[in-house]
Amino acid sequence: MSTIESVHIPPQTGYAFLLPAGGVVRIIAPLGEQVADVMAFAAQDVREYLSSGRTIDYNENIFVVKGSTLYSNRSRPMMTMTEDTAGRHDFLLTPCSQEMFEKTYRVTGHHPSCFENLATNLEKFGVAPDQIPTTLNVFMNVPVDSTTGKVVVDVPSCSAGDYADLRAEMDLVVGVTACSAEMSNNGTFKPIDLEVSRI
Amino acid sequence: MSTIESVHIPPQTGYAFLLPAGGVVRIIAPLGEQVADVMAFAAQDVREYLSSGRTIDYNENIFVVKGSTLYSNRSRPMMTMTEDTAGRHDFLLTPCSQEMFEKTYRVTGHHPSCFENLATNLEKFGVAPDQIPTTLNVFMNVPVDSTTGKVVVDVPSCSAGDYADLRAEMDLVVGVTACSAEMSNNGTFKPIDLEVSRI
Repeated sequence: MSTIESVHIPPQTGYAFLLPAGGVVRIIAPLGEQVADVMAFAAQDVREYLSSGRTIDYNENIFVVKGSTLYSNRSRPMMTMTEDTAGRHDFLLTPCSQEMFEKTYRVTGHHPSCFENLATNLEKFGVAPDQIPTTLNVFMNVPVDSTTGKVVVDVPSCSAGDYADLRAEMDLVVGVTACSAEMSNNGTFKPIDLEVSRI
Repeated sequence: MSTIESVHIPPQTGYAFLLPAGGVVRIIAPLGEQVADVMAFAAQDVREYLSSGRTIDYNENIFVVKGSTLYSNRSRPMMTMTEDTAGRHDFLLTPCSQEMFEKTYRVTGHHPSCFENLATNLEKFGVAPDQIPTTLNVFMNVPVDSTTGKVVVDVPSCSAGDYADLRAEMDLVVGVTACSAEMSNNGTFKPIDLEVSRI
């Protein structure tokens, strides 16, 4: 029997936790139209991390779907997406950051960001900000134009209650955010809920 | 007046060097149909590195073209592609590696790889293998299907003598390979030539 822990991530915040091998984190958009940036590191050595490039390479696909294996920079299976009711996630873009808000949206002054929220919550697990790379952006809707290469950030296609399950294939440190970017949640900041099952 | 150093990178090998801000490296496919994996780190702190995710995000494009600015994980301009006669490069996939040859091509025994050649040559600059992320794969031809997300590795579209120029926007450590993968060069391993201009 597994123990289930419920976690509520308020809008524009984050959370980090240990997920042993075999454990599953269910990432839920309780109100729909919200993005959760997810990052994972090997608990035994946080220099091993979830790699977008290796994952795209081995799956031969830019999209993560039900059944996709997510690989580390050392080419080892790190997570598997075992369930998915949303159908669209992004693994191309980096977490929103103070610099992104300044460059892309001309924001002045502090703006909450997924990068800051991951960095703050992952610090206690020995992860430095420079170790946060391209994240798995759960529910993020980023179409790519095959001809021009252009990417756009569209409204997430997930509805209220949609979820994606990620199973740990090794002992992990996992960080998750409720995205802070106006463009990623159709203009209204929303929470993300987690259900974490440990065997 | 700038000093120009010519470097010949034999097939399936690599090279690493310091490129001060303002310097330019011209990456040449002398025989065409060959890929050069390129990675850059800030010379003053190699924890700052060329980031595919930040570059795709800020350019709003998966393709790097003439005029593209390439960004670091700290969102600072690191390089600019100032000239390009080839027209197609990839910034989605990780360097070919021993594990990739084993997983994707069922190779047994040692196979030369861009990852190994970058790691070996970057070691003297204080870069550990785990610090080599998704690289800029110059001349690599990786079309993406917008609908399915599928990526394929096509024959490079570059012809003999095609080149791309990358200008350093900060003092850099740069690694470059002549790709070791059969699929990236139409079945014949080929060299890569460099012309490095320092102001």
